[in-house]
Amino acid sequence: MKRPNIVILGAGYGGMITTVRLQKMLGANEANVTLVNKHNYHYQTTWLHENAAGTLHHDKTRMKISDVVDTNKINFVQDTVLSINSDEKKVKLENGDLEYDYLVVGLGFEAATFGISGLKENAFTISNINSARMIREHIEYNFAKYNNEKEERQDRLNIVVGGAGFTGIEFVGELANRVPELCEEYDIPREKVRIMNVEASPSVLPGFDEELVEYAMNLLEGKGVEFKTGTMIKEVHEDKILVEKDEQQEEIPTNTVVWAAGVRGNSIVEEAGFETARGRVKVSDTLLAPGHDDVFIVGDCALIMNEENDRPYPPTAQIAMQEAENVAHNLKVLVRGGSDLEPFEPHLKGTVASLGEGQAIGVVGDKKLFGWTASVMKKVIDNRYLFMLGGVGLLLKKGKFNIFTK
Amino acid sequence: MKRPNIVILGAGYGGMITTVRLQKMLGANEANVTLVNKHNYHYQTTWLHENAAGTLHHDKTRMKISDVVDTNKINFVQDTVLSINSDEKKVKLENGDLEYDYLVVGLGFEAATFGISGLKENAFTISNINSARMIREHIEYNFAKYNNEKEERQDRLNIVVGGAGFTGIEFVGELANRVPELCEEYDIPREKVRIMNVEASPSVLPGFDEELVEYAMNLLEGKGVEFKTGTMIKEVHEDKILVEKDEQQEEIPTNTVVWAAGVRGNSIVEEAGFETARGRVKVSDTLLAPGHDDVFIVGDCALIMNEENDRPYPPTAQIAMQEAENVAHNLKVLVRGGSDLEPFEPHLKGTVASLGEGQAIGVVGDKKLFGWTASVMKKVIDNRYLFMLGGVGLLLKKGKFNIFTK
Repeated sequence: MKRPNIVILGAGYGGMITTVRLQKMLGANEANVTLVNKHNYHYQTTWLHENAAGTLHHDKTRMKISDVVDTNKINFVQDTVLSINSDEKKVKLENGDLEYDYLVVGLGFEAATFGISGLKENAFTISNINSARMIREHIEYNFAKYNNEKEERQDRLNIVVGGAGFTGIEFVGELANRVPELCEEYDIPREKVRIMNVEASPSVLPGFDEELVEYAMNLLEGKGVEFKTGTMIKEVHEDKILVEKDEQQEEIPTNTVVWAAGVRGNSIVEEAGFETARGRVKVSDTLLAPGHDDVFIVGDCALIMNEENDRPYPPTAQIAMQEAENVAHNLKVLVRGGSDLEPFEPHLKGTVASLGEGQAIGVVGDKKLFGWTASVMKKVIDNRYLFMLGGVGLLLKKGKFNIFTK
Repeated sequence: MKRPNIVILGAGYGGMITTVRLQKMLGANEANVTLVNKHNYHYQTTWLHENAAGTLHHDKTRMKISDVVDTNKINFVQDTVLSINSDEKKVKLENGDLEYDYLVVGLGFEAATFGISGLKENAFTISNINSARMIREHIEYNFAKYNNEKEERQDRLNIVVGGAGFTGIEFVGELANRVPELCEEYDIPREKVRIMNVEASPSVLPGFDEELVEYAMNLLEGKGVEFKTGTMIKEVHEDKILVEKDEQQEEIPTNTVVWAAGVRGNSIVEEAGFETARGRVKVSDTLLAPGHDDVFIVGDCALIMNEENDRPYPPTAQIAMQEAENVAHNLKVLVRGGSDLEPFEPHLKGTVASLGEGQAIGVVGDKKLFGWTASVMKKVIDNRYLFMLGGVGLLLKKGKFNIFTK
C-alpha cells in the first residue's frame, strides 16, 4: 500500500504545529510528511516587532527547524514555494516539484498596501527576520548619519508607524524604549526624535476595551509617542509622507515609515485559483479550501467568519495554532481511511498587547489586565507556545523568563 | 598686571597634552588658559579604526574633557573654530570670538583626496567619532539589506579600503575579525564578502621593515584580506570604483570605500595665511608658525622635517604629544617673561601596527616585534598615553588590559 504524501507549506505557527503534531500522532509507515520552508528556521512572528525595534535580538525569535522537528521522521525541504497546482496535486518550488495527496498551506501574510502611493516602494514592513533586522539597522543608520551632515535633517529622526492595531502599538512601545538608547549611542538629544503613530480609525486598537486603550495611550504618550488618529496616509516618499485629517493635509519629513496597518494572505493562494475574500481563502468548517477535499489552509491565509459578529476572526498566532491542531487531527483520520472530520472551533482565550518593557494591556477571559501583570501574562503566553512546540527543551532555550524586565 | 590669554584650539593629542601640562605647570594667576573644542569629549584618533570596524565601542575611545581637564583652572569652550586672524590675535568661533596672547593650534587633519574623481562625495574617512561609527553602521546596513533584495548585490558585500599605510592596514585587520560576526548576524556566507586593500605603492606599509610587512600580509591574507598593490583608485562612484594597475583598468562594485590613503593639515591653518607645505605649517624649531612669535602649531597641522632622510616626520600621536610637552614648557617660559625657548627634538620610540585581535607588528628601538608580543606592546603604548593624560584614574577607566584578546 502506498503511503500518502502530506506536504506542509510554510513553517510559521500553523505549519510548525501541524508538523510536530503529525510527527507525534502518525506512525512512521502511515504517511510521508514533508515540510517546505524558505529558510532553515522557524520564527515567532509575534516577536518580530521587538527585533525591528532593536530591543530583542532576532536569534531569540528564531529557531532551527531541525531543532524542533525530527528530520528522521519528517522530510524538511528548504526551498521557496512558487505556485500550487491543485488539479495536478503538485507544488512548484524554486528547485523542483513536489506531489501531494494532502496539502497544508500555511504560507503566511503579505502587507496589504491599499493602493497608497509610494507605500510599497518606500515603507518597511515587519514581515520576517530579514525585514525586521533591516528596520533596526535602517533606524540606526539614520541616527548614525545625523551628526555627520552639515544640515540637520529631521527626516532621519522622525519615525512613522502606520497603523495602531496590535503590531503598530506593540512596535511603538518597543521603539519608545529603544530610542533613548539610540540617542545616547549617537549623541542625539531625545527631544529631537519623534515617534509617530498614524491610524485611519478614530481610535487606536480598534475594537479593544476602551479603558485599556486609554491606559495604553497614556502610557505611550508619556514615553513620547505621538498619536495621529483619524489620519490617513496619502503618499509615502523616500524622505517624507503626506497625511490627511479632516481634509487638512500635512507633510511629515521622515526616512522611516513602518507599515503595520494591514495584512492579507500570501498571494500564492490567490494565484492558485482558490476562492479568496480579502486576500484569504474562505475555508470550510474543516479548514478545507472550497471545492477541495485535500487542501487545508491554516493561519493568515485562512478566512474564518465569527458568526457572533459576522466579522472574520483576526489572523492571530493563537488561532493559527488551534487550526493546526485541528488539521493534524483530521489528517490522521484521513490517512487512516476515515472520513469523519472534526469541524474547527476557535477558542479565544484572550489577547495581550505589550507596550514595551514591563508594560502591557490585555483581556483574558472576562478579565482586564494592565501594566506589569499583563506583561507577565504576555510572557506566559509566549512561553506556553514554546512549550507546545518543542517541550521543555525549547522553552528553556528561547523562553522569556525575566518577568521584571524583558 | 594683565594675565596673558593662552588659547588652545583642538582637543586632540596635541591640544590635550598641552592643556594638562599647562594646568600642572602654571599657577592660577599666571595665565588664562582656554581650550576650544567642537565636542565636549576628547578621543583617541589611533583607536578610531576599531570603532569604524565595529570591534571596539566608541565610548571606550572617547572621554569627557571635563573628566581629564580641571575646568576650575582651564576655561573649556565647546565651539567650532571658523578662522584665525593672527594680525588681530583673534579666533573666530561659531558662537563668538576669542582674543589670545599665545595661540596653540592643534586642529588635526583632513583627508587628502588628491583630486580623485568622486572620492570626496562617495568615500568614507576614519576622521572622528561621528564618521567612525557611521562607517560601522554603513557596513551593517548594507549587510542587513543584502538578504532583503531579490537580486544579490555584490556591491553591498565588497569593502574597499584605500591606502595600506598604518590606518589602512590596522583597519583591514579589524574588519577581518568583524566580518565573520556580521556574516553570522545577517545570514551571509563569509566567502561572499570581500575585503580589499588598494595601495598605489608597490608594497603595503611603505617604508616599514620588509620582514614585518611580509608577516602582516600573510596574516591578513590568511584572514581573507585581498591586497591590490601598485593599484591606483581612479574614480569612486556610489556603487563601484574604478582602479588601474599597469594600465589595466578594473571596475569593482562596492558601496563602501574607506579612504585611508592620505591626510593633510586642517584647512583653517592654510586659510589663516600661515605658510604651508603639503597642507601643513612648516614650523620653526620651537614649533612657531613662520613669522610669528605667538602661534604654536602641534600635531597634524605641523610639518617637521627629519634632517636624516630629508623627509617630514609622519604625523603620529607620539610626535604630537612630544610637541605638546615642548610647547607647554616654552609657554611657561614666555608667560614668566623669559625668552630662552627650548627647541623641539622628536624622539622616535618605535611604532606598532595592530593587525586585529591579538596580532600586531612593530619596531621598538632596534627590535622587531611580531604577533602576540607586538599586540601586547601596542596596548602598553595605548595605556601609557592614558596614564600621561589622566593618570591612574583614566588608565583604569579606559585602558586596554585584556592582553589575551582585545
